[in-house]
Amino acid sequence: MDCRSDEELYQLVQESRVHTIEGMVPDYIPALAKADLSSLSVAMAFPDGSCYSAGDIETKSTLQSISKVLALALALLDNGEEYVFQRVGMEPTGDPFNSIIKLETIAPHKPLNPMINAGALAVSSMIKGDSVEERLGRLIQLTELIIGEEGIGYNEEVAQSELETADLNRSMAYYLKQHCVIEEEVDAVIELYTKQCAIEMNCVDLAKVGLLLAMDGKHPATGEMILPPRVASICKTFMVTCGMYNASGEFAIRVGVPAKSGVSGGIMASVPQRCGIGIFGPALDDRGNSVAGWDLMEKMSKKYDLSMF
Amino acid sequence: MDCRSDEELYQLVQESRVHTIEGMVPDYIPALAKADLSSLSVAMAFPDGSCYSAGDIETKSTLQSISKVLALALALLDNGEEYVFQRVGMEPTGDPFNSIIKLETIAPHKPLNPMINAGALAVSSMIKGDSVEERLGRLIQLTELIIGEEGIGYNEEVAQSELETADLNRSMAYYLKQHCVIEEEVDAVIELYTKQCAIEMNCVDLAKVGLLLAMDGKHPATGEMILPPRVASICKTFMVTCGMYNASGEFAIRVGVPAKSGVSGGIMASVPQRCGIGIFGPALDDRGNSVAGWDLMEKMSKKYDLSMF
Amino acid sequence: MDCRSDEELYQLVQESRVHTIEGMVPDYIPALAKADLSSLSVAMAFPDGSCYSAGDIETKSTLQSISKVLALALALLDNGEEYVFQRVGMEPTGDPFNSIIKLETIAPHKPLNPMINAGALAVSSMIKGDSVEERLGRLIQLTELIIGEEGIGYNEEVAQSELETADLNRSMAYYLKQHCVIEEEVDAVIELYTKQCAIEMNCVDLAKVGLLLAMDGKHPATGEMILPPRVASICKTFMVTCGMYNASGEFAIRVGVPAKSGVSGGIMASVPQRCGIGIFGPALDDRGNSVAGWDLMEKMSKKYDLSMF
Amino acid sequence: MDCRSDEELYQLVQESRVHTIEGMVPDYIPALAKADLSSLSVAMAFPDGSCYSAGDIETKSTLQSISKVLALALALLDNGEEYVFQRVGMEPTGDPFNSIIKLETIAPHKPLNPMINAGALAVSSMIKGDSVEERLGRLIQLTELIIGEEGIGYNEEVAQSELETADLNRSMAYYLKQHCVIEEEVDAVIELYTKQCAIEMNCVDLAKVGLLLAMDGKHPATGEMILPPRVASICKTFMVTCGMYNASGEFAIRVGVPAKSGVSGGIMASVPQRCGIGIFGPALDDRGNSVAGWDLMEKMSKKYDLSMF
Repeated sequence: MDCRSDEELYQLVQESRVHTIEGMVPDYIPALAKADLSSLSVAMAFPDGSCYSAGDIETKSTLQSISKVLALALALLDNGEEYVFQRVGMEPTGDPFNSIIKLETIAPHKPLNPMINAGALAVSSMIKGDSVEERLGRLIQLTELIIGEEGIGYNEEVAQSELETADLNRSMAYYLKQHCVIEEEVDAVIELYTKQCAIEMNCVDLAKVGLLLAMDGKHPATGEMILPPRVASICKTFMVTCGMYNASGEFAIRVGVPAKSGVSGGIMASVPQRCGIGIFGPALDDRGNSVAGWDLMEKMSKKYDLSMF
Repeated sequence: MDCRSDEELYQLVQESRVHTIEGMVPDYIPALAKADLSSLSVAMAFPDGSCYSAGDIETKSTLQSISKVLALALALLDNGEEYVFQRVGMEPTGDPFNSIIKLETIAPHKPLNPMINAGALAVSSMIKGDSVEERLGRLIQLTELIIGEEGIGYNEEVAQSELETADLNRSMAYYLKQHCVIEEEVDAVIELYTKQCAIEMNCVDLAKVGLLLAMDGKHPATGEMILPPRVASICKTFMVTCGMYNASGEFAIRVGVPAKSGVSGGIMASVPQRCGIGIFGPALDDRGNSVAGWDLMEKMSKKYDLSMF
Repeated sequence: MDCRSDEELYQLVQESRVHTIEGMVPDYIPALAKADLSSLSVAMAFPDGSCYSAGDIETKSTLQSISKVLALALALLDNGEEYVFQRVGMEPTGDPFNSIIKLETIAPHKPLNPMINAGALAVSSMIKGDSVEERLGRLIQLTELIIGEEGIGYNEEVAQSELETADLNRSMAYYLKQHCVIEEEVDAVIELYTKQCAIEMNCVDLAKVGLLLAMDGKHPATGEMILPPRVASICKTFMVTCGMYNASGEFAIRVGVPAKSGVSGGIMASVPQRCGIGIFGPALDDRGNSVAGWDLMEKMSKKYDLSMF
Repeated sequence: MDCRSDEELYQLVQESRVHTIEGMVPDYIPALAKADLSSLSVAMAFPDGSCYSAGDIETKSTLQSISKVLALALALLDNGEEYVFQRVGMEPTGDPFNSIIKLETIAPHKPLNPMINAGALAVSSMIKGDSVEERLGRLIQLTELIIGEEGIGYNEEVAQSELETADLNRSMAYYLKQHCVIEEEVDAVIELYTKQCAIEMNCVDLAKVGLLLAMDGKHPATGEMILPPRVASICKTFMVTCGMYNASGEFAIRVGVPAKSGVSGGIMASVPQRCGIGIFGPALDDRGNSVAGWDLMEKMSKKYDLSMF
């Protein structure tokens, strides 16, 4: 796609890039440990089809937790709002994304929200299809529809690497199975979830996903309604209340834009009616968010007055 | 003030009022237990000075937790953002408003956010003044400036009643004192907090507070900047992420508007750039929100397309 | 074996049996739900070879959590004290036996003690052998040595039933695997643990296990040292501090004897230097202990002055 | 009193004293921070009136948490078992002594046991008397009866120092007051508890308290029943299950003797029917127990075969 290099964005990227040295890659996913810590790329996609970028926009990265938003959208399409929220809550939590505590302390034993791992596992288990392949295929298809291009795939090496280190997710999935939130085989949902996390794209595509949500589910070029407005609205709401791990509250205060991050260093943001933003910067802060990406979002929010609040 | 009875609002109120029978008044505050459970009133205030209402708009109620927003605004004015957030966090929590657990489990030992009781106590302790009277007076003064009218006071009977049943708040305050989040005498901050909760007004005034936040702190009639835009923005953000107790996430999904509730059955909402809403309906659901007020907000959000998301 | 019916014990059993109506069988293990709720049997085995009993002493029941003591003994024999306690703690906990919370909140992430499920899974994973069969066989062999008779086996129906409902244990095992407390395949340790829980015997055999621990590991008839005194001592200590689920503290106060219970309604007690006691009474109280068995232990403790304290 | 210096004990003390360098004094009680970190003293008192000691047995130290045992004995005398345990539980906990979490998570909201601070506050509030002075006086009187000598007092400087830093205890007391476990004024119970913690004696007196519990409440010299056997039994049971903070389970495994420690570095132990032990060694480990005192208890337990298990 055509996405123009932009001098102003480049300046911001240069300023934010200095923060990459404060970050680290997660050591629990070996395949992510190879990422170039100093890299930082950004794209902004607008409803009129224009796109501005800075940094290396060719490199693809995996979505990791950003995929939770797409999976939620598909699960809502497949099952409807009522079914989904009988199994997953809507509340943000002060606990880390991989905490299991609330599953035990809160009754009924359902995950607090779809953006923590426990909730995302429950959501993935609701994606319909006869096999893991088919269900993953449907998620990829939806992603391609949203982006408006084919050719989206997942990184097998990363998926394999995560599958081998997914014991904490397996622990949560069995906990959820015990309480009937997950009904299928744990191995299946773990495989689906792990592969979904390994879906990869560049920051331009990521910005386009953000743009579609910003436009209430309508494709800006074709005018086609890819997602019902209600589904897009739900996704954006969770991005505000729980999108940035247990720093979501602070991000809302400091940036004020619906956004979802992943441990690959990705951030996808949706500025309602205005634009989508995609960022990849693999160096993470201690809460799992791209350290330079966060800084860049703060700078962009101030410069372009992006905050909803 | 002039606030016109509105037929459309009246219809919505009639529909929502049926839910009052599902609610209860909190038994731990004797003075609140006398409220008329079936009552429900609402006002919408607009930037052009117009105001529409339904229900008994003359009755005054106490603000309770809604006062946390005003206290936060004043603490930010008094101390600046940095000072305040060194002592209080920005993260929503899945725990109840009066939970003490996170104070122990999260390091450093500061309250998760200014909208739970622990955080609100910390915030009140930052309001400047030589005495509790002076500090409370300053908060009332700010409230009067925001509303644009004098004559705001607090309900002494309710304050006295809550002071006598404030042991859980005292427990939290001493916990915070132990960890140097609160530095003054616990008795002083408990008195200030309890009296601030007992500030009373009618739903029209409440709507006007919401309106000022919706207008980024600028008084719609005079154009005067009562609160800096940044302070108004911070308040609205917390109203989205933590304004409705541990149902804030669900309210964001179902209503999508910055709002703060109190156990007196009040809800104050701010629809950015559009209007402020004030509601009083004393019958509460099990999470402490006005049960009919919540329903009314859902209906208004759908009818007038109020959601930010 | 020869175990004489005793009139005095029979009287106590009759008195305690009335409490069976207050109890329930656990609904999460279908095969246990068939137990005769009103049954209660007891045996006391003494160092001189004498044995007194009351109730139906022919019926065999599964050990369930009582097997945790035998597994701990074997794991200590196999690995030594230091190795075992690097992986499992020694502290009692106020949490239920199947709680997962402390695994997350306490660092390092090891189970608090070998008597809660998380700790027992870790202990079972330390039992040596080339296959689950061999490891289970070694545990059964040790049990036969302790009892002094062959013919101990496990109940396949119960094992199968529990294997199908073991998702919470699987959840814990994966959590422990994530933190390297368990190193083998989760399926293997779950199979071993589930089969170990299904080892079955009658209350006379159970009393003999208690007797051997009471005699510091020395077989009272042959004088053979079946367990090192230190291993017997460790087992008895855990039976005091954590043997009766999260009612262990109360049992110590009310009965004062090292004892371990199981959800099959079994209680095995060791009165140092004096006797072993075996009880089966399937009706459970809300903390998982035999309701009539507990009452019987209180009565026996008072009548025979059994308390250590 | 006559307590002979013993060469064998002296050797053990010398060996254990090296561990004092691993310890620290608690920084939250300024008056305790002045203690001589390298000091270590011990006394063993026997039923025949003989007494053996090593180290500086003249120095008096405050009891701190050891006073919880004496207060529990008096509360049981004043109110009976049933009354006391309606307000305080019997279960050990894996949480630190000053944790407030379980008060919120466990229903009904009563402290888990009388040896954690929350439980000890509840216990002290049950000591009868018309004033704090009278109630403290009654506790001191009981202590003098147990020791068989007059002249016991409390250290006013330490009491004052702790009163000024007791905010966490105040926090717990208000929490308990909210839930009606404590009924009196918080200030009163805090004053009583703080002064009771400051009761001071030397290690010989401490050994005599341990001896009386070891002898089931009967004074070994006079034969007088100072405490009912049941009260002595309850005290010793809690000393096993919860006496050494959240290292009680490990102490039971490694030493196997009922014991209670305090942050002044004191340890009081009761070996049933055999002897009482008093130790003061102010350097503490990270769980609040005398680091050299613990080591000395391990050595004495092995050398004199003191374990009950």
